[in-house]
Amino acid sequence: MNKFRRNLLPIVLLIASVTAYAQSAAAELQSLKSTAPLTSIPQLPIESWHTPQGSQVLFVQNKHLPMFDLQVVFAAGSARDDGAAGLAQLTLGMLDEGAGQYDALQIAEGFDAVGAQFHKQAGRDSLAVTLRSLSSQEHSSKAVGLLSDVLGKPQLADDKLQAIKDQLTSLLIQRQESQNYRATDLLYQHAYANHPYATNSTGTRQTIESLTIADIRAFHQQAFAAGNALITLVGDLSLEQAQAIALQVSSALPSGPALSPLPAPAAFEPEIYHLEHPGSQALLLFAIPGISVHHADAPALTLANLILGGPGATSRLFDELRSQRGLTYGARSKLIQHPASGLWTFTTAVEARYRDASMALLEQLLADYAAQGPTAQEVEDAKHKLRGSYLLGSVSNQQISDILTHTGVNQLPLDSRQAFLDKVQALTLDQLKVALKKHLKLDKLVQISVGPTVEQDALPHIEPATG
Amino acid sequence: MNKFRRNLLPIVLLIASVTAYAQSAAAELQSLKSTAPLTSIPQLPIESWHTPQGSQVLFVQNKHLPMFDLQVVFAAGSARDDGAAGLAQLTLGMLDEGAGQYDALQIAEGFDAVGAQFHKQAGRDSLAVTLRSLSSQEHSSKAVGLLSDVLGKPQLADDKLQAIKDQLTSLLIQRQESQNYRATDLLYQHAYANHPYATNSTGTRQTIESLTIADIRAFHQQAFAAGNALITLVGDLSLEQAQAIALQVSSALPSGPALSPLPAPAAFEPEIYHLEHPGSQALLLFAIPGISVHHADAPALTLANLILGGPGATSRLFDELRSQRGLTYGARSKLIQHPASGLWTFTTAVEARYRDASMALLEQLLADYAAQGPTAQEVEDAKHKLRGSYLLGSVSNQQISDILTHTGVNQLPLDSRQAFLDKVQALTLDQLKVALKKHLKLDKLVQISVGPTVEQDALPHIEPATG
Repeated sequence: MNKFRRNLLPIVLLIASVTAYAQSAAAELQSLKSTAPLTSIPQLPIESWHTPQGSQVLFVQNKHLPMFDLQVVFAAGSARDDGAAGLAQLTLGMLDEGAGQYDALQIAEGFDAVGAQFHKQAGRDSLAVTLRSLSSQEHSSKAVGLLSDVLGKPQLADDKLQAIKDQLTSLLIQRQESQNYRATDLLYQHAYANHPYATNSTGTRQTIESLTIADIRAFHQQAFAAGNALITLVGDLSLEQAQAIALQVSSALPSGPALSPLPAPAAFEPEIYHLEHPGSQALLLFAIPGISVHHADAPALTLANLILGGPGATSRLFDELRSQRGLTYGARSKLIQHPASGLWTFTTAVEARYRDASMALLEQLLADYAAQGPTAQEVEDAKHKLRGSYLLGSVSNQQISDILTHTGVNQLPLDSRQAFLDKVQALTLDQLKVALKKHLKLDKLVQISVGPTVEQDALPHIEPATG
Repeated sequence: MNKFRRNLLPIVLLIASVTAYAQSAAAELQSLKSTAPLTSIPQLPIESWHTPQGSQVLFVQNKHLPMFDLQVVFAAGSARDDGAAGLAQLTLGMLDEGAGQYDALQIAEGFDAVGAQFHKQAGRDSLAVTLRSLSSQEHSSKAVGLLSDVLGKPQLADDKLQAIKDQLTSLLIQRQESQNYRATDLLYQHAYANHPYATNSTGTRQTIESLTIADIRAFHQQAFAAGNALITLVGDLSLEQAQAIALQVSSALPSGPALSPLPAPAAFEPEIYHLEHPGSQALLLFAIPGISVHHADAPALTLANLILGGPGATSRLFDELRSQRGLTYGARSKLIQHPASGLWTFTTAVEARYRDASMALLEQLLADYAAQGPTAQEVEDAKHKLRGSYLLGSVSNQQISDILTHTGVNQLPLDSRQAFLDKVQALTLDQLKVALKKHLKLDKLVQISVGPTVEQDALPHIEPATG
């Protein structure tokens, strides 16, 4: 356990730190057998408050298991690197290299010794740490104390910096060899030109090498300030215990306010890119402007996206590209929602010789969907799927933690899940078609292919379906 | 949590399912401050028995935390694919797609609901599943019951097979783009020609597509037989509880004996390979024949390897290639020990233009080490490091589980750790030099480089060390 954690690089989220909740919940639904109609979901008894230091806290008591999950989310991901790409990741990596009176090994062993699990995550919008601990006082006090030191009193010692830089550089080198990362980085450079989202979280060798321990200490003071922190707690804690834990964590953090919101990005133009990359496969990543989580059309596009390219084997893209044509092993569409903007992406990977034909096919599928919309049956099925995912998606502490983070990061009302689901269920086929015509606009389509250049073939002939 | 587990591909261990224990323990020692001399390590109170069904069980009670770790290791990894490469991985992937009366979602939620964590691992020698559960009867009975269904009564349904095949194929495609995997696959093809280790665990598109549900059911009956299983238990359980859990798991498995041992591989010849691969880096993987875990020289080579290329910043390879020359972000040597054979590998990655010069340098470093051996100071430091790692390496349940697995898989005596450490501490400098001359023989050296072909440069001039 130690070994794994010691070697764990900061996890880089592929695209965004928070993806649309409905999508992730729906991912768990592939095997759902229940067909009982559902009209309302159990409301989560969310307690919400601010610590005196300014951290927002969201808490749900769940006494089912003698443990709890604590997440601390700082609204300061790589979008705050401010020209020094890699700064947020490096800072996150340095946190548990020594904190308070403990060295790195003692920190890892300290969590292990009380059966606690500690993880770190980095994205464009946020940095997050999670702790799962037994809820008994004996264990939780040690785990929370150690976490408070890691977040609030990291040593940020100069003699540890080079090793963390080396880890980040290794990650950077790996990413440069990944079709997915290359495509995503290019998409963000295009869609967010002149905006902080344009830089990737791992930086470059030059920016990594140029960063000093003073940069990291300054970033820690600002990004990890109490006013910039969202604390979520789920599990077997009394309200008083939750308040004490939140206070302990919050008061350990540097004092300071929330960072100012990022500027809204400008619109982007359509473009076609090809990145040369070896191998047998061409990765296709298409994107158009999306919407923020607060947009009035979010319920409609969530449902429309689920039908088009949601998880599982029933989506339009999967059915056409995988089931009918056998062109790929997967095809997805995603609504990526940043606090003040969004992207709608469509992605698949095909044999390189079918790249051009598959790009044309994918564009045609999107155009057909925009023009005709879904069928009434697709809408009913998707509503049913979404209802089920909402019901099943708030069972475990981890799921509830994710809901709280989504709620807090986006400053949503505490009852927003039910309201969102109600809006989805009330959608008519016509409303969906209107929303699709408005948002699924291919005159803004960015098309990225990443793969080798080979002679192009027409798509294979489709066998007539056998009865 | 569900989402992660549902999408989790079978974890592929890079080279071997069990690496030398001493190496992994030493990895945790980078920050060790203690300088107290240690002569003996606390003996683990290992209880050992066989179930009536023939499973070996190793148990260590640890009442420190109200939880326990259960590992079930089947001596049947991809080396048992028998020409149908990918079979072991596919079978492992199918286990929790439906088992007993539960579908995949219910299995994932079932573990979640009792706070249990379930993971799967695949290697050349073995398949393993791990369960971490709360030890209270209420939680553990559900978790162990579910695990027993997953291992013993997987549905192995034909209509789930294609999705798991697609996942494995995606993993295969990723691996084909990884320098590390390409180098390792080639090394195993060379070093284990005409031996089951030669095939890689993900198979090929052809072998994956050709596998049927009947193949998987047959493999499950043999590989997951009770007689082929090692069960380790560590944590807050009485001996009676541990016996009951082991019995429950063992009796759920298909009845059957342990598989016959694999044949010993033939010797291999020296060779130089280059694989063309895009990017900026050349990965270098060198290897010579190693030794099995039972070899009399295992203590000497463990210490010699730690000095040469063990983890951390103090090894010879790291010091020369990273600290002095800045050629790389990491350099390691590893003793890889399979039950009946072994490899000694040396690996680093450099800028492509320094590939040839770095290969010559690496070979020279190995030749120097073989000829002159370590210094007395290096030996003392390494002994100290190893002592500390042995002391610290048996603290958490997870660490103890790994020790038990290493002990069981290799059929070592229960007190082998202390005996091994005693042998290491008793080694003289002369004995180490003799062992190095005997085993570090470069006339068997296999040299693999993976990277782009670019014009080659001489190594950069080393700045004289500043005082």
